Amino acid sequence: MPPVHFQVIARDPASAARLGRLTTPHGAIETPVFMPVGTQATVKTMTPHEVWDLGARILLSNTYHLYLRPGHDVVREAGGLHPFMAWPGAVLTDSGGFQVMSLAPLRRITEDGVEFRSHIDGATHFLRPEDAVRIQNDLGADIIMAFDECTPYPSDREYARASLERTARWAARCRAAHGRPDEQALFGIVQGSVYPDLRIESARRTVELDFPGYAVGGLSVGEPKPVMYEMLEVQVPLLPEDRPRYLMGVGSPEDLIEGVWRGVDMFDCVLPTRLARHGTVFTRRGRITVRGAAYARDWAPLEEGCTCYACRHFSRAYIRHLLKADEILGMRLCTIHNLHFLLRLMEDIRQAIAAGRLAALRRDFYALWEEGAEGTVPEPPGAVNR
Amino acid sequence: MPPVHFQVIARDPASAARLGRLTTPHGAIETPVFMPVGTQATVKTMTPHEVWDLGARILLSNTYHLYLRPGHDVVREAGGLHPFMAWPGAVLTDSGGFQVMSLAPLRRITEDGVEFRSHIDGATHFLRPEDAVRIQNDLGADIIMAFDECTPYPSDREYARASLERTARWAARCRAAHGRPDEQALFGIVQGSVYPDLRIESARRTVELDFPGYAVGGLSVGEPKPVMYEMLEVQVPLLPEDRPRYLMGVGSPEDLIEGVWRGVDMFDCVLPTRLARHGTVFTRRGRITVRGAAYARDWAPLEEGCTCYACRHFSRAYIRHLLKADEILGMRLCTIHNLHFLLRLMEDIRQAIAAGRLAALRRDFYALWEEGAEGTVPEPPGAVNR
Repeated sequence: MPPVHFQVIARDPASAARLGRLTTPHGAIETPVFMPVGTQATVKTMTPHEVWDLGARILLSNTYHLYLRPGHDVVREAGGLHPFMAWPGAVLTDSGGFQVMSLAPLRRITEDGVEFRSHIDGATHFLRPEDAVRIQNDLGADIIMAFDECTPYPSDREYARASLERTARWAARCRAAHGRPDEQALFGIVQGSVYPDLRIESARRTVELDFPGYAVGGLSVGEPKPVMYEMLEVQVPLLPEDRPRYLMGVGSPEDLIEGVWRGVDMFDCVLPTRLARHGTVFTRRGRITVRGAAYARDWAPLEEGCTCYACRHFSRAYIRHLLKADEILGMRLCTIHNLHFLLRLMEDIRQAIAAGRLAALRRDFYALWEEGAEGTVPEPPGAVNR
Repeated sequence: MPPVHFQVIARDPASAARLGRLTTPHGAIETPVFMPVGTQATVKTMTPHEVWDLGARILLSNTYHLYLRPGHDVVREAGGLHPFMAWPGAVLTDSGGFQVMSLAPLRRITEDGVEFRSHIDGATHFLRPEDAVRIQNDLGADIIMAFDECTPYPSDREYARASLERTARWAARCRAAHGRPDEQALFGIVQGSVYPDLRIESARRTVELDFPGYAVGGLSVGEPKPVMYEMLEVQVPLLPEDRPRYLMGVGSPEDLIEGVWRGVDMFDCVLPTRLARHGTVFTRRGRITVRGAAYARDWAPLEEGCTCYACRHFSRAYIRHLLKADEILGMRLCTIHNLHFLLRLMEDIRQAIAAGRLAALRRDFYALWEEGAEGTVPEPPGAVNR
């Protein structure tokens, strides 16, 4: 009996969107789903019970970070990530591929694996695909990821082809090394940079290996949004209908809608939590940065009509004060709001698919979103903590 | 009708301890009470509802900090501190005297007031006793404090005498400037450094002014503990029996017991929250610093038998990981535990006084406390954020 089972429940008539149910050893998850990121076995600023109360049922955590600190042996001794962090829901661990690749120039890729230097103490490590899987076996997530090269953007065609081929060979090695196939589902990752034919080739080579789920990697790494959407249109239809499809590292409201529209079932991103710690929050009319002086005497909630804890109790003026004074509660309240916003959006999306009206939701979303709240805010930099 | 009313409900037979009830415009508070500190209108890392759920019913906030940021006019426009920070209980504001004095050498004391430079931007400000009271009128706390000089330790007798006399003159000016006597109770502060005769003189001069409550200031500022206890024994009996007595800036478990023993009703201190952020927690057997390598694989809770949220769900090993990884949840969990510890200790103390068995509680406390958990840990430095 495979540890993870996926079932498509309904399809949207106007798009490739599906409503699904992903059954894991730690509960069933309705898809499309956004997974909050708990890089270091904690969703930054939040307790696991707060994340649960916001409606999340699956979290992402990071192999790279946990391997370095506290060490996968410590997590294994705790009984795995779930008891270690007291999270009652499901967990997916990223393989570390993205994080290791983003350490350039502190890493060197060979056919056997990747040599890199720790961002914590500079120590040299060598990670092979087999290591990444065995570490994830110790971490004990419900879903684990193959070790891939997240092909940098931009890459020329030759590099992108060599990279996707290596990723495919690594995927086969990961599958062979998987020590707990009855307890953890290992998903493959497709690459191909921004070249439609390479995206097609990567999908074909990865699907041949017959994984219980597939992630689309190497997008949202700097390419223009229309290019990302085009790559999804090329590649997602090649992934099996009856397996979950996961778009890695994507989490802006508009990209969630566009990903679902193109048939994606799962998403993760640090964006909502990272923006929050910089004092930027989502509203249906776009983002606002509540640190700004304009909010010093603004007694409205972060978003009028929002039912999250932050909006039910506190004003923008108070939250701005907390952020300016470097008080942790300010980051907490913005994090609660942003996660609530995205999880509610996904709930709305699921209801819309069930009712066959995703096109209407998408139209209504853009009508408000493009009004704008105060103009676009640049995203803070940083990739290792993704 | 005075805004704050105090009633002694029971007395301990073996000591000067009293069980009391302090009625404020925002609820009644059982004394002896420990007030968590929300320096900048937030108890660091906590939501107000979490602080309430731990059993706190009165918080302290700081005039100095709120005057500089966000500005007392902003808090007044919010309707005062209670709605600004969404705190349903009572609030006491410190006058800023302690904070301004601790800015030395960035401050200059004159008869009229204190000139100081902001720790935020270095700008020069001049604060007179009248200003401190009017700012507190704007902040809107239930209990406000006279503007005093917290006499530094050590000070010679001449300086300590001049300082206490100035503080007494300032106390009279504060009383005259108080703009909301029907809504906010203004407490006087006694000083006198470590000189018994000056402590007596300061008590006499301050009590003459007839305040609805009295704070003992200038202790726990570096003097040996036996000296602090001696000063309490000299000074507290001179404060009126029917008024609350507040020992400022004291919050170690042993000092709470010794203060109550000598007739103190109210306490505040940043110690539990500040220690927590450095990863040090209270247990009945003394403090432990859970950041230490010894806890890397310690699967016990912070304190065996503790019923706080942190101890019910998380291991020392996990909390150590969070602290080492600079994750905010680590500071949150230690803060919850330390506040729970002190608030539970005060609840135990109140029950012991009611039952006439404070001596037994004190004996039992020291029997465990002196066993030690891992030896004494030095306190982190810093005074401005008190």
